Amino acid sequence: MPKIERYHKSLDHSYALGIFPSIEALTHAPEHCRKLLLSEDIQGEGADILFALCDQHHIRVETADRALSRISEKKNTQAAVVFQKYESSLDPAKNHIVLYNIMDAGNLGTILRTALGFGFHDIAIIRPAVDVFEPQTIRASMGAIFRLRVKSYNSFEEYEKDHADRRCYPFMLEAKTSLLEAARLQADCGQPCSLIFGNEGSGLPQHFIHRGIPTKILHSEAIDSLNLGNAVSIALYKFTEGSFK
Amino acid sequence: MPKIERYHKSLDHSYALGIFPSIEALTHAPEHCRKLLLSEDIQGEGADILFALCDQHHIRVETADRALSRISEKKNTQAAVVFQKYESSLDPAKNHIVLYNIMDAGNLGTILRTALGFGFHDIAIIRPAVDVFEPQTIRASMGAIFRLRVKSYNSFEEYEKDHADRRCYPFMLEAKTSLLEAARLQADCGQPCSLIFGNEGSGLPQHFIHRGIPTKILHSEAIDSLNLGNAVSIALYKFTEGSFK
Repeated sequence: MPKIERYHKSLDHSYALGIFPSIEALTHAPEHCRKLLLSEDIQGEGADILFALCDQHHIRVETADRALSRISEKKNTQAAVVFQKYESSLDPAKNHIVLYNIMDAGNLGTILRTALGFGFHDIAIIRPAVDVFEPQTIRASMGAIFRLRVKSYNSFEEYEKDHADRRCYPFMLEAKTSLLEAARLQADCGQPCSLIFGNEGSGLPQHFIHRGIPTKILHSEAIDSLNLGNAVSIALYKFTEGSFK
Repeated sequence: MPKIERYHKSLDHSYALGIFPSIEALTHAPEHCRKLLLSEDIQGEGADILFALCDQHHIRVETADRALSRISEKKNTQAAVVFQKYESSLDPAKNHIVLYNIMDAGNLGTILRTALGFGFHDIAIIRPAVDVFEPQTIRASMGAIFRLRVKSYNSFEEYEKDHADRRCYPFMLEAKTSLLEAARLQADCGQPCSLIFGNEGSGLPQHFIHRGIPTKILHSEAIDSLNLGNAVSIALYKFTEGSFK
């Protein structure tokens, strides 16, 4: 058995750290799960659910406190799933979120969870970007990543080649169309859409102003821009407004 | 001269760390600024603006690399303003945000910046809560705190006593009214409103269901709840939709 090592990008596997992310991995992506690591003193409802899931999917369980403290930055991580990294294909019939050069693992994780919350299940990541399978991303997503289709591309052109015939909404400060108008335009249009967001610091490159319907979230002039996570959550809310009960 | 010490709650002063937060402090709250600490090797446009502001407001400038590295968790902090902590009064004629038992300094800072972005200038903090003047809050707000009126209260009742005759919207998962309806109700009502948000983990206590118009942000059942920062930003967007150009 190879020793469980601290995560780095070149590994073919990663870790869902914590009881809740582990449950999500075993529930929604059991085919990618290799084994479950548990702390000696785990107990309670979470433990029961984890045991039942591993039993159901024939996944090995190991007591491995030392490995847990090695792979986790936080103390007291009581469970972790070791899973094989995998590629998903995006559904061309569904709405997408495109994250262009997103660099922060925590941001990406939170956005994935919000995406799941608003029913966006298809996420394109345009490189260079943070590693989607970094444990910190998975933890910040609270395991939402296992219920989504996430695919990384080397360029926006590569994404476009895969997914032509879509209505694109690049979110940019220089845009003319407000989010309110953009959501109305999308409601009147039969095509699926791609909501495109830029890097945390620099936003989208200028050339996106010539693609689709550049959109801005109007706010006061007292701030330069909203932070990325807030901008995405506001846009997802507005594009799905009225569709949840 | 007393030595500049690392921030703790019992100090009567705090620090705006970084060039941009320092500029915000000197621009919007010069009456509370005691002095500016600079790194020996600071230069560029930021430095020029800082010097001009200190000159204008007769605020002392000190080269103090050791003090800077002591009070800052980050390396390479090139500037910091030492300011006297102060109390603000909320404007009873304006819309308020009420943050009930918010515990994370980074969350609070980001919310303050978003509040400024959507023109909410009055923020009530209900204790127990994170210290408003913690340097991490100020940094995460990017200095927005100096353009807002923030007041802490020992209980919600204390806040209510100060600010009766307002339309309250407690944001709760158990609510019946959607954000969409709540924003419509508020648009048809002459009164100022208070948008009330609970703790990061546990939300608002149950008894808020009997106050004002409890409101929920509808999303899919795949997640339990939105994170606090996202919920606040979506609510602020919706309550001000159409009012920025």
